[in-house]
Amino acid sequence: MSSIHQKFQVPFSYIVHFTEGLFNPTNLLLRDVIAQDGSEGQRKLFFVIDSGVQEAHPNLQTSIKNYFNAHADVLLLNGDLTIVPGGERCKNQPELVQQLLEAVNEYGIDRHSYMLAIGGGALLDMVGYVASIAHRGIRHIRIPTTVLSQNDSGIGVKNSVNAFGKKNFLGNFAPPYAVLNDFDFLTTLNERDWRSGISEAIKVSLIKDETFFRFIQENAEKLAQRDMPAMQYLIYRCAEMHLQHIAGGDPFEQGSSRPLDFGHWSAHKMEALSNYEIRHGEAVSLGIALDSVYSHLTNRISADELEQILTVIHTLGFDLYVPELDEHLEDASHPNSLLHGLQEFREHLGGKLTITLLDRIGKGVEVNRMDNELIIASIQYLKKYYYQLSPVSESK
Amino acid sequence: MSSIHQKFQVPFSYIVHFTEGLFNPTNLLLRDVIAQDGSEGQRKLFFVIDSGVQEAHPNLQTSIKNYFNAHADVLLLNGDLTIVPGGERCKNQPELVQQLLEAVNEYGIDRHSYMLAIGGGALLDMVGYVASIAHRGIRHIRIPTTVLSQNDSGIGVKNSVNAFGKKNFLGNFAPPYAVLNDFDFLTTLNERDWRSGISEAIKVSLIKDETFFRFIQENAEKLAQRDMPAMQYLIYRCAEMHLQHIAGGDPFEQGSSRPLDFGHWSAHKMEALSNYEIRHGEAVSLGIALDSVYSHLTNRISADELEQILTVIHTLGFDLYVPELDEHLEDASHPNSLLHGLQEFREHLGGKLTITLLDRIGKGVEVNRMDNELIIASIQYLKKYYYQLSPVSESK
Repeated sequence: MSSIHQKFQVPFSYIVHFTEGLFNPTNLLLRDVIAQDGSEGQRKLFFVIDSGVQEAHPNLQTSIKNYFNAHADVLLLNGDLTIVPGGERCKNQPELVQQLLEAVNEYGIDRHSYMLAIGGGALLDMVGYVASIAHRGIRHIRIPTTVLSQNDSGIGVKNSVNAFGKKNFLGNFAPPYAVLNDFDFLTTLNERDWRSGISEAIKVSLIKDETFFRFIQENAEKLAQRDMPAMQYLIYRCAEMHLQHIAGGDPFEQGSSRPLDFGHWSAHKMEALSNYEIRHGEAVSLGIALDSVYSHLTNRISADELEQILTVIHTLGFDLYVPELDEHLEDASHPNSLLHGLQEFREHLGGKLTITLLDRIGKGVEVNRMDNELIIASIQYLKKYYYQLSPVSESK
Repeated sequence: MSSIHQKFQVPFSYIVHFTEGLFNPTNLLLRDVIAQDGSEGQRKLFFVIDSGVQEAHPNLQTSIKNYFNAHADVLLLNGDLTIVPGGERCKNQPELVQQLLEAVNEYGIDRHSYMLAIGGGALLDMVGYVASIAHRGIRHIRIPTTVLSQNDSGIGVKNSVNAFGKKNFLGNFAPPYAVLNDFDFLTTLNERDWRSGISEAIKVSLIKDETFFRFIQENAEKLAQRDMPAMQYLIYRCAEMHLQHIAGGDPFEQGSSRPLDFGHWSAHKMEALSNYEIRHGEAVSLGIALDSVYSHLTNRISADELEQILTVIHTLGFDLYVPELDEHLEDASHPNSLLHGLQEFREHLGGKLTITLLDRIGKGVEVNRMDNELIIASIQYLKKYYYQLSPVSESK
């Protein structure tokens, strides 16, 4: 009678769809996703829209309403279309969480209804969090609108908001009901947002799939010039690799399985040091460049491989150096030193440092320490490389 | 390129332990549960204690501190022992959730630390909710102190608090790291709390296990007289059956699998009608009695079987009638009519009514409708039965 061992497995399943013209009445995707839920009649759908997306697509609300009119046998628009400010700031506003929970209550959104979010990764994180805690989890459908959210941050199982000044302090693991990636949203992205999300594709290709890296390499010019078919394939393959990693590893991060975080230890720190002026994807491209140089300086990859990597990153339009890289480099214990980011990353991982480096293009390798002097040398290498590429900007 | 189907299973595992003298330094259970987590050195444990438990066990805080001193190689008491008011009211206080989240932040409780809750089911629900949303889920250990929480509400995977005047409006599914059932906490329960939790054992026995019902029947007098060995077996077997139902069915309630809710449609309503003066377990015993009478009136169980059930409930000290049963019975649409509870239960289930009745002692059966006239007849049957048992109270 001393103990009972409780063990079970919980199955999760959702489909990440790729489409164009999601709210064109002739596009049956959304209608079908809902119609296949096993119930009958009108289902209630509640929409939250990123204000940035709304501004870039002034007809979006009308399109959604027309779509619902055309498919009123299945779809019922519940409440107003709710516009909230997107970007990281939306995760810092507890009143937004409260506002959406009040809407759940007021509109009677239950476990048979749907909450849909249209926006970038931060907005999807925030709305997903609300959906995951209301009624112990209501169905939420993610409609990511940026490259980064379509190929990585918007398609996974994590939800969160910030609290106490700490990123993702509140959150949980709750898979979406479905993800609807509409490529049309990409057409209105500004240059920086178009480019930023490509860095996660470079990341997965470098550590997992040389063929994918060759695709990015061959299409770097096209991608920089906003070629849509190239971008569509890049997003699809990047999303596929992230989804495989989640499913094949440890989806709810219960054990020691690690995320695909090549280049991320320094990226997190650069974002914070720039007060989030540097976008996540931009920081990741810098982080990839830095750890690629480090991989070369520790004789893991050749000078030629490094050159190929840096050329791809540069061709895509990313900067290969920012001043945040060498602030307070002489003092690793200074909170504004990039080197301090290594210490913070170790704490984030729970005390044991694990860093991904490159053994070759297409193959990552995990190490448990990095040498401060070699990191500094890597930064100097990047800085020199950057000013050789763009000598005029040295004076800035 | 049209879609990617993401599918995976997430394994969950935890042990429900039964013990006595949990904080006796010679009892190695808590120490061992922590020591076996795969890490090394001192682990940080943060305690939340139900004020009612603290009052009944004034030496509890000293015992815990002594236990930690005795096992300081593994255990580190993190922050103060936090005393919060228990009972359903603790789920109605958003400021308690905020207070505990602030403690998580202040004391640096991370995914390698532990949050422990000592108390009744409501307190465990609330603390479990905090633990489940902090850092996307920190380890929480439940130490249930009532019969009901040790055999049912404190050992499962649900966490929640109330909001907008609605029970469990906020919550999620997050299994505990471990459950530590210490029978010593039962010795200080008042009569009502000792008795209340027995009703969930009657419930599972009636719908699933005749042998267990015979045990309760044979030990009803002993249980009423607070016989500890009988109670320990009752809790163990009831916990085992609830855990089997969770593991074998649909742990996170994603589909149509149903909880073990025999007698619960009217119980929920009676609790609300009494403004929660009637305890959950007391309401469940009334609900079981009501649906047993209904099962008899619809020729599912015999008069003799019904008599056995009502006798067990009465012998244990439960009332078989309360005035809440027949308020506004003439008007099923009146919000204070018990019959309206059937409607609310239907909505709670998402539109389709499923009620468990009895086919015989030890075997439940699901039906999709109940007849209002027969419910009224069942209530009248119970009322008459009650006043025959205790004729003096008719004047009250």
